[in-house]
Amino acid sequence: MMDIAFVAYPEMTALDLVGPYEVLAGHPTVRPSVVAARPGAVRCDAGLVVEATKGFDEMLAADVVVVPGSQRWRRALDDAALLAWLATAYRNARWTLSVCTGSTLLAAAGVLVGRPATTHWAAREDLARLGALVRTDRVVIDDDVVSAAGASAGIDGALSLAALLWNAATAATLQLALEYDPMPPFDAGSPDKAGPAAVAAVRRALGVA
Amino acid sequence: MMDIAFVAYPEMTALDLVGPYEVLAGHPTVRPSVVAARPGAVRCDAGLVVEATKGFDEMLAADVVVVPGSQRWRRALDDAALLAWLATAYRNARWTLSVCTGSTLLAAAGVLVGRPATTHWAAREDLARLGALVRTDRVVIDDDVVSAAGASAGIDGALSLAALLWNAATAATLQLALEYDPMPPFDAGSPDKAGPAAVAAVRRALGVA
Repeated sequence: MMDIAFVAYPEMTALDLVGPYEVLAGHPTVRPSVVAARPGAVRCDAGLVVEATKGFDEMLAADVVVVPGSQRWRRALDDAALLAWLATAYRNARWTLSVCTGSTLLAAAGVLVGRPATTHWAAREDLARLGALVRTDRVVIDDDVVSAAGASAGIDGALSLAALLWNAATAATLQLALEYDPMPPFDAGSPDKAGPAAVAAVRRALGVA
Repeated sequence: MMDIAFVAYPEMTALDLVGPYEVLAGHPTVRPSVVAARPGAVRCDAGLVVEATKGFDEMLAADVVVVPGSQRWRRALDDAALLAWLATAYRNARWTLSVCTGSTLLAAAGVLVGRPATTHWAAREDLARLGALVRTDRVVIDDDVVSAAGASAGIDGALSLAALLWNAATAATLQLALEYDPMPPFDAGSPDKAGPAAVAAVRRALGVA
């Protein structure tokens, strides 16, 4: 069996955890855990509440660690217990996947210093300040760390990780199970496509204007 | 303010709820609720637990109703309390969005009889048996019902709904906020692309072989 620890913390973005959870957790060889400072309710940034099944001290080692981001990632960067757990869990894991601004947490935990990684487009400057080599790709694989860009990219990142954990045929079957054949209604998913007004609106909403 | 009721029930697929939640619930005019038979923990089909904030009897009317699917949708079709609530909530809502096999629940609740709708590709026969006019599109808009195909299509469906609730510029900005510029690692997101072996594997896993 393979233990996958999905990290949860206050004001994380639910989709960053749930996208990879849906791709990876249902595989018959996977034992998924949602790990937080304490077991119990964790309130996400848009209000949804998910339950952590384990406290940090109950799971210091997992085969795979999944690190969601947050719209309030700068606050999460002050969470010393979270960063300490990430540093330990990363050392004990075979693979670590960050989604969205989750890569800023990994960088602050010392994992990404001098290493290529991606993040939400609005957090690139922050990730660079934390010492990572910022890439603008949707998914970056660097040795034992897979990083994915903003929120929805967690699905792409988890499918890439699935191919590494198992094989391409298994990952393709997982993609089919989720009918991941995307047709976004607008050509607006990245800052260069969406244009300056939308970019400014999102930066304002995220407090990085 | 606009009330959006995200329906939750045992063994639903978490991504079907969370994709639309992430698109819609953060808008400043939205008051989101997770509504289930009883408030409290709801265990999803891959194991994740989310919290319902309201019981069915506490919210019989919302402006928008979001109906997730389930890998075990045939079991959910036997949930009389769920179907009865859906019939009432649909009548009271301005818009209803189904994701994945959520459309089979709407059809069983009498909402989609003789109306065009989409669903997870493996549930098309079931949706037809329940009286809907099955489409294979990723998103179908028919009057006041938006239906989306399998799991991940909830993001596409919710963005289409956002354009109807607000306008195209707002929906495009929401798409940018989630960096929804998908790059699936495999060309395997639909049954015709994935090939017969993957199709057979998913149908087996879903018990519709």
